[in-house]
Amino acid sequence: MPEQWYNFLPDLPGPMPEVRDSGSPSAAEIAETIRPRILIEQNGTDQKWIPIPEPVLEGLRQCGRPTPLHRAHRLEQHLGTRARIYLKREDVLPTGSFKLNTAIAQAHYAAEEGRTTLVTETGAGQWGMSVALAARMSGLRAEIFMVRCSLEQKPYRRHYMELLGAEVEPSPSPRTAIGRKILQDKPDHPGSLGTAISDAIEHALGLPGAAYLAGSGMPHVCLHQTLLGLEVAAQLAEYGEELGVQGRGDHLIACSGGGSNLCGLVGPHLRARADGADLRFLAAESTAAPRLTRGVYAYGRTDLGGFTPEVLGYTMGEDFIPPPNHVGGLRNHHSSALVSLLRHEGVLDAVAFDQRTALEAGRLLLRTEGLLLAPEASHAVAAALDVAAEARTDQREPVIVVLASGAGFLDLQGYHEVLADPHEALVDP
Amino acid sequence: MPEQWYNFLPDLPGPMPEVRDSGSPSAAEIAETIRPRILIEQNGTDQKWIPIPEPVLEGLRQCGRPTPLHRAHRLEQHLGTRARIYLKREDVLPTGSFKLNTAIAQAHYAAEEGRTTLVTETGAGQWGMSVALAARMSGLRAEIFMVRCSLEQKPYRRHYMELLGAEVEPSPSPRTAIGRKILQDKPDHPGSLGTAISDAIEHALGLPGAAYLAGSGMPHVCLHQTLLGLEVAAQLAEYGEELGVQGRGDHLIACSGGGSNLCGLVGPHLRARADGADLRFLAAESTAAPRLTRGVYAYGRTDLGGFTPEVLGYTMGEDFIPPPNHVGGLRNHHSSALVSLLRHEGVLDAVAFDQRTALEAGRLLLRTEGLLLAPEASHAVAAALDVAAEARTDQREPVIVVLASGAGFLDLQGYHEVLADPHEALVDP
Repeated sequence: MPEQWYNFLPDLPGPMPEVRDSGSPSAAEIAETIRPRILIEQNGTDQKWIPIPEPVLEGLRQCGRPTPLHRAHRLEQHLGTRARIYLKREDVLPTGSFKLNTAIAQAHYAAEEGRTTLVTETGAGQWGMSVALAARMSGLRAEIFMVRCSLEQKPYRRHYMELLGAEVEPSPSPRTAIGRKILQDKPDHPGSLGTAISDAIEHALGLPGAAYLAGSGMPHVCLHQTLLGLEVAAQLAEYGEELGVQGRGDHLIACSGGGSNLCGLVGPHLRARADGADLRFLAAESTAAPRLTRGVYAYGRTDLGGFTPEVLGYTMGEDFIPPPNHVGGLRNHHSSALVSLLRHEGVLDAVAFDQRTALEAGRLLLRTEGLLLAPEASHAVAAALDVAAEARTDQREPVIVVLASGAGFLDLQGYHEVLADPHEALVDP
Repeated sequence: MPEQWYNFLPDLPGPMPEVRDSGSPSAAEIAETIRPRILIEQNGTDQKWIPIPEPVLEGLRQCGRPTPLHRAHRLEQHLGTRARIYLKREDVLPTGSFKLNTAIAQAHYAAEEGRTTLVTETGAGQWGMSVALAARMSGLRAEIFMVRCSLEQKPYRRHYMELLGAEVEPSPSPRTAIGRKILQDKPDHPGSLGTAISDAIEHALGLPGAAYLAGSGMPHVCLHQTLLGLEVAAQLAEYGEELGVQGRGDHLIACSGGGSNLCGLVGPHLRARADGADLRFLAAESTAAPRLTRGVYAYGRTDLGGFTPEVLGYTMGEDFIPPPNHVGGLRNHHSSALVSLLRHEGVLDAVAFDQRTALEAGRLLLRTEGLLLAPEASHAVAAALDVAAEARTDQREPVIVVLASGAGFLDLQGYHEVLADPHEALVDP
């Protein structure tokens, strides 16, 4: 397992655009209050390798890092492809998703600073589960604002957090001023990541000893996730693979919601690509919020309360409400600055899938490899199927690495609702 | 990973009692029709080591064997024990339980014999999930009779099986004569393992190309599960542990429903114990069906249709209906012949837990080690806590191996219902 994170900010294809931060207090001042200091430093460091603190290493090892890199032989056979497809298996982590990697690190820094309560928001619940466990591992309390409609749709995730001792609140929340205002205007508001971020930040600002943790998007989150790309590099070498051989069209593929899994996977490989390696980075998004494929590059915010700065990114606009579907992790209206920059500079390709296509890809993976991934991760699988098909047409034999960002057991209701069809039951994969 | 199964039948403390098989056709004749021949041979072989066929080895490796042996440092610290507690992590298998080990083997033998459909019963659904995946891996169809009340309580498990292409039928089933008869007498019959076994065997008898698979109890099932005890032995050695040191009171602990996980764990260690190793085997059962701690040693049957022979075992009686609880895997009314013989000969200790005590132990494991186990496995954890406490009193430092037989994500509703209590949310583990 890597013992340092890789800071890929110096390897970006251009400078990070300035944020617009005109509030009073400013978003920067708010962040200085609620965010552990070292995380703010990690957002802007130019140190290339950042040592991972020993307690974080211990926690990550205890949770099963390094995670396996699985060669998907049976899927390859089924596809009749000569591409070599590898799955980076974050689904085996104890909370069932890659989110745990940064939750453990952030909880450690919060505890080290003497903070006592972790406050955050969660959409579908994967991030909340990881914060609940990381809080427990660091001896902290956790208070988690969960998008109300997800809370109702996914009671199991709430049960898990509560079993760990976390307090889970629906968002919009009557406990915050912003939540009360939203509920006054619309008492049956289903909640969104925007409402939940606002609730969590306002609550953290008023709670002594609170640390507010971000689950995605921010550079420090992506830094912690560089374990993904670093482990993949080392594990591919163990398989005897060399990544980026000319003319082969090797691919690193991840789904993109907030984008930290994607950045964590590709970040450590940006330099090689810039140096001429034949390496493609591909983001798989949902047609429910197709920012990278159909959005505009513009300034915007992720919260409703004005607690965060405006950042430049591919966006559907602040008023965009993604249609409800089973892919909670990909329903952001605004792409993070990091992912957007990679896309804008042409370093990152993107493709969008509707949920049926993605879940069919997920089912195919289950039927061939025996692995049930979260709907979000199934979007990356769908992208890999297309890349493999194209390589077959071109008679190329690429290495394709797919990030299996999460497990799908708690999403079986979604798979069932989207795919249930009695006539399909006996069709071969 | 071991490449042979260990046949522990010659190491049993006494001869296996005869079965009573007076039906017409006899249970033996029925078995010869519906069970792959090699499995019947494995029930009575005296060959010590049985080579695992190459395709089975490949399937097991693909599914992640060998599974990790996890040292539970944080749990030990919390308990203030000097016992060294290890968890054998079957929960990481892709179907979330140890059942997959024998499902892959049985599906292989069925396919090799030219059978085309796997037929079985399932209670809580773990066995059904494993058969559904193993069928797919061997290119076979699967038809699974699931206890009706479990089917209704646990829709996720049904969705999983169907996603793999399996046909799932409620039991009692209108598709069988025995099912129709039961439903005529009691149209709202909730089903039981007894009804489901009967449905499955009757259906398999009438279906050309069918193989009926047993998920537990039978010697061939326990044989396939000896991977557990063999891997534990090798992995403890890697940790530098010697098992069975005098005066230390080392323990191997598993929950006991049908008993195949227990037999698979302890079977390879029977000889060492007989030769004088200080090694204790402990079965954790549910107070909902406390056969080993409160049952009588008598002949009885597991099905209602008379398709299976009467076997000698610890039993609550054929009319016993266990109270409904969230521990479907431990609600058998009759213990298997193998487990019962070990118990009767004094080789096996047993202890029963109510579900609240067991699920509290499961919650403690989650809060310390970050692992959420199935309610059945949490019974084994509860037993380990007691063993560790006793060792502390006696100032012993035993090695305690707990079989983490399954994962608990699909049981979160049960954990929630049993443990939900707002005042507990902030209590430290």
